[in-house]
Amino acid sequence: MQFDLTQRYLSDLKASIRSDDQALLKKGMEELHPADIAEILDALNKDESSALYSILEEEIAAEVLVELEEDVREYLLASFSSKEIADQVIDNIESDDAADVIAELPDEIQEEVIKLIEDPEQASDIADLLTYDENTAGGLMAKELIAVNKDWAVLKCVKEMRRQAEIIDDVYAIYVVDDQEKLLGLLSLNRLLITPTDTKIEDVYEENAISVHVDTDAEEVANIMDKYDLVVLPVVDEKGSLVGKITIDDVVDVIKEEAEKDYQMASGITDDVESSDKAWVLSKARLPWLLIGLVGGIFGAQIIGLYEHDIQIYPEMAFFIPLIAAMGGNVGVQSSALIVQGIANNSLGVESITSKLIKELGVALINGLICSAVILAYNLVFSDSLALSLTVSVALLSVIIFAGIFGTLIPLLLHRADIDAALATGPFITTINDILGLVVYFVIGRLMYGII
Amino acid sequence: MQFDLTQRYLSDLKASIRSDDQALLKKGMEELHPADIAEILDALNKDESSALYSILEEEIAAEVLVELEEDVREYLLASFSSKEIADQVIDNIESDDAADVIAELPDEIQEEVIKLIEDPEQASDIADLLTYDENTAGGLMAKELIAVNKDWAVLKCVKEMRRQAEIIDDVYAIYVVDDQEKLLGLLSLNRLLITPTDTKIEDVYEENAISVHVDTDAEEVANIMDKYDLVVLPVVDEKGSLVGKITIDDVVDVIKEEAEKDYQMASGITDDVESSDKAWVLSKARLPWLLIGLVGGIFGAQIIGLYEHDIQIYPEMAFFIPLIAAMGGNVGVQSSALIVQGIANNSLGVESITSKLIKELGVALINGLICSAVILAYNLVFSDSLALSLTVSVALLSVIIFAGIFGTLIPLLLHRADIDAALATGPFITTINDILGLVVYFVIGRLMYGII
Repeated sequence: MQFDLTQRYLSDLKASIRSDDQALLKKGMEELHPADIAEILDALNKDESSALYSILEEEIAAEVLVELEEDVREYLLASFSSKEIADQVIDNIESDDAADVIAELPDEIQEEVIKLIEDPEQASDIADLLTYDENTAGGLMAKELIAVNKDWAVLKCVKEMRRQAEIIDDVYAIYVVDDQEKLLGLLSLNRLLITPTDTKIEDVYEENAISVHVDTDAEEVANIMDKYDLVVLPVVDEKGSLVGKITIDDVVDVIKEEAEKDYQMASGITDDVESSDKAWVLSKARLPWLLIGLVGGIFGAQIIGLYEHDIQIYPEMAFFIPLIAAMGGNVGVQSSALIVQGIANNSLGVESITSKLIKELGVALINGLICSAVILAYNLVFSDSLALSLTVSVALLSVIIFAGIFGTLIPLLLHRADIDAALATGPFITTINDILGLVVYFVIGRLMYGII
Repeated sequence: MQFDLTQRYLSDLKASIRSDDQALLKKGMEELHPADIAEILDALNKDESSALYSILEEEIAAEVLVELEEDVREYLLASFSSKEIADQVIDNIESDDAADVIAELPDEIQEEVIKLIEDPEQASDIADLLTYDENTAGGLMAKELIAVNKDWAVLKCVKEMRRQAEIIDDVYAIYVVDDQEKLLGLLSLNRLLITPTDTKIEDVYEENAISVHVDTDAEEVANIMDKYDLVVLPVVDEKGSLVGKITIDDVVDVIKEEAEKDYQMASGITDDVESSDKAWVLSKARLPWLLIGLVGGIFGAQIIGLYEHDIQIYPEMAFFIPLIAAMGGNVGVQSSALIVQGIANNSLGVESITSKLIKELGVALINGLICSAVILAYNLVFSDSLALSLTVSVALLSVIIFAGIFGTLIPLLLHRADIDAALATGPFITTINDILGLVVYFVIGRLMYGII
């Protein structure tokens, strides 16, 4: 039943496009969901996707457009006049998607398109949505919702729904408001279905519906909908008036993007890229962190350079440079990842920074002592230098403790300063800990070789 | 409006628990959502949470139980008899949650509880749900759904809904089946509301509803619901009969867990832990990767050991050991992260492995040449050894290329072999690339110093 885009399917389709077999193409597309058609268009080149897009029915084409990747949507829309965008696209999609599509257009065209929208209410809804930051509840919400007055009877409510059902596809809740449009609560559809039609809304609706303010951060919206298992969430303005609703599918995208962003940061990738992007796009997203690593490596070289003479006398000191650097990096990444994840999930708990650091110290001590013992045992057996054996173990323990503390503290401090804590993960923390590890290693080394 | 758990709130609450002020506690809990109460219980110690849990009303207590962390639920349920679990907990929650709660109980109690459930239909539903793997559609689905026969009129359908509305809280869709219970399609609630009551279901329902098989993998379920923006998804068995439905809130948990798992793997954390877990739990989850890193470091030491004599003569060779190792690790993590993310999102595209490798080669060449040029410029200015300058740059370029290829190839091959590709990220790929980098560096070094 599900569509699965294969290389075989794609090459057959390309052949049909080349031979301009419109009947076959139309038939093929009719069987597919707009999301599947979008997946196909994303995988085709410019000419092929334009050709395929042109044969789609207007309503389907509009829905497909919403699902496309941004660059594909951009070049498909480039051939549309503002009038066509208003009539053929915007008129066929929901207000939140419409605002997203318009926001991507060049500034001068945005206003033109809005002016050309025939329905004045739709035009003002979209213009309103465009005023919100895309990372807030206002930027996620849609204007399509069914609001009923608490003084109405259920029958009037059903009539209002029938009137609006043409416009709104999926209704998950009916919002109850007072005469000033202030949100009072909600009424579920099945409640509506089982209530006698002369009952007053006031007597059957659920009070205290969970809602968010238009300026609430998108990530917080996601955490709220996830925590309370909500499918739809009403949005209110300063006065408590109902101004829109957010549905869970938009929030799923926020959750996925947020998780991806943190993951990519931790992996040293700056932009939002996919493995199917072009080589130079991928290179550009990866280069910045590599350059940071390079600078870190140069610092590392300078630190080791300070100990050139020691290395000449005790070349075995060089053997464990990678081990010390790598372990510092690993511990730092582990610690910072836990903090970043806790921030993303809102699951840091109520512990203070101090108690988090004390706990991290405990973790670092446990793991540091185990790792140091293992490497000490190895060196006592395989190395004939007691000074080296002790240096490596003491340095390793110190590095693990330092790295754990830094890995915990830096993202927490960034978060306090309202900077994205994920910045502190990946190559950044690795690089700092590499350098720190080298300093600790050589300082302890000189000390040990002096003593023994 | 939202509840925010603060340290202040928690310490006031603990004081009320100590002074056993039941009236105050009851009043405080009445104002809260079950998810908030669960958050509080998770943050209390055993005695405090047991005391607070005991004052909750039965229905709320059951809902709270579902939201708790597993270990808290376990010790709260430990004081319940099987009869109490059946009557007070299972009877008050939906079938999917009930199955999850029962699945966590000791084996001998599981059967006892199921036998003690009063409603035989509920008992058999739960027993059925317990047979599915928790990572499949069957493990995610609930049995509560409204199915109507295609031959019924809308009026009968509304009556059926009214009958079932007592049991089912949120209805998002009505499923249409034939006489053999085979799923034919669905009917949205607003469609039902606006259709004249004497219309036959057959004439108004939507055919070709997207559905999944009971054995479909949970991750695929998540991808399908995300792709097609579904709030609820019907589940069918081999014969196409409707056996359950999955709601988006359960899938959001799957998406979050999956993203977290990949992130933790990439950060070198094995178990599903949170920063608020105890120190020894965190240590245990982090130690395995550290030990892998340690073994990698020992291999690295042995490789450098082979070149001890060279280092004694050219100690400056040691300076760039951390740079080469770190850059190999960084590139490997970048490459593997993109593949793992592509697998998780189902966005790898239709490219073959070969074309992915060719692209990665392109990325590695671009970034490798830039980084090598930067470090060559640095060394030509600050180092007086031409051999060293050339060694570092040539080795860096080679390492970036090797690391990119390995980072791409290993997760793709693991995925082909049905092993979790995320295993190939983080410390694993870093360690391999560290060792590889050292070998390349010293081999090229010996060559360069021999030539120049």
